Amino acid sequence: MANMGETERTRLRREPTRAVKDQQVLYRIIDESLVCHVGFVVDARPVVIPTLGWRVGDDIYIHGSRGSRMLTVFETGGEASITFTLLDGLVMARSAFHHSANYRSVVVFGKPERVEDRQTKLDVMKVFMDNIAPGRWDELRATNDKEIKATDVYKLSLNETSVKVRTGDPIDDKADMTHPVWAGVIPIQRQFGPSVNAADNLDGQTAPDFSAVFSGPWKDA
Amino acid sequence: MANMGETERTRLRREPTRAVKDQQVLYRIIDESLVCHVGFVVDARPVVIPTLGWRVGDDIYIHGSRGSRMLTVFETGGEASITFTLLDGLVMARSAFHHSANYRSVVVFGKPERVEDRQTKLDVMKVFMDNIAPGRWDELRATNDKEIKATDVYKLSLNETSVKVRTGDPIDDKADMTHPVWAGVIPIQRQFGPSVNAADNLDGQTAPDFSAVFSGPWKDA
Repeated sequence: MANMGETERTRLRREPTRAVKDQQVLYRIIDESLVCHVGFVVDARPVVIPTLGWRVGDDIYIHGSRGSRMLTVFETGGEASITFTLLDGLVMARSAFHHSANYRSVVVFGKPERVEDRQTKLDVMKVFMDNIAPGRWDELRATNDKEIKATDVYKLSLNETSVKVRTGDPIDDKADMTHPVWAGVIPIQRQFGPSVNAADNLDGQTAPDFSAVFSGPWKDA
Repeated sequence: MANMGETERTRLRREPTRAVKDQQVLYRIIDESLVCHVGFVVDARPVVIPTLGWRVGDDIYIHGSRGSRMLTVFETGGEASITFTLLDGLVMARSAFHHSANYRSVVVFGKPERVEDRQTKLDVMKVFMDNIAPGRWDELRATNDKEIKATDVYKLSLNETSVKVRTGDPIDDKADMTHPVWAGVIPIQRQFGPSVNAADNLDGQTAPDFSAVFSGPWKDA
């Protein structure tokens, strides 16, 4: 289980009221994000790369080509900061200073470890596929040895995390409440689809209905 | 002008065909993202924090509370990697290995510098507001000295950048083209609004029409 342990790195230094300790909130931010930003250090300088990231239980996974710069850093024991962020809205206040954003974010710290076991690699990649298109994995041309060897999968446990959430209305100064300007939120959400067939899609192969996946639990926040 | 100079850090090590040298593409990724991920180094370890980021000409800006951990790193000359990413679609191929994502990303490297001049700070924050809600800055309660002092704005020039774009169909192995599974793209885009009034919004104050901003140049990619 992720203990969401608070460490010197994860203790929020600003706006502590935005810290969240709910495990389900953490899970959902990761599951919904699809993309994460992976930070690592090269020659004492930071590098932040976007990549697909997903969760199985209390571990997150990323994958990439063997020998890539990022994975080489982790192969040699380098630390990561992997951040999942959803921008949920723009918060429009009566003063510029109180404008804000509604968002949910998870920052995970630690040393990603390569998944060595061949079957485990396949299993966790299947989970990622199932999240997007249930059942699709079994319909695909089977993964071959060359592909499995060329792709490395790295795991990072949710032992050291920081979760932040902002929701709701702007919070203005009391003296500004009669200032004649609109105040509120512009919601932002991701819209998936409609699917577009590949130019060389086979006749008779129609896109599965992904709408249940993307409009399911994610939309009722 | 951003020279988009290629350095050892920005030279793409993987999939070089995805590198993009078009300045307008770079600008648009930054302008459309709204959120960026800022990487910095604390005690030799990476930290990646999401924050709002915007562009004025060939400089990007972030802001935050004076004394925050991130800004303290930059105040003392620390390096940043600031990454803007737009996930545009999920690319569904005939084999798991060839699944991919359509995306656009910009990674900017360098040492952010604090904007010291008071008027410049206000001017660049006004640009950010105008991007979202043209004309709104002048309708707000004016920013006061205390607020200006509490907020630090940092600038990073687009001198060292890496731009990557993937678009279009899956690219499958020739031998897989007759494999009986759907192939194509699930597009993803951000949907803004409809606006929600704050609970304490003044009677008679209606939300401006932001749709022209958010459905303008960003939607015709």
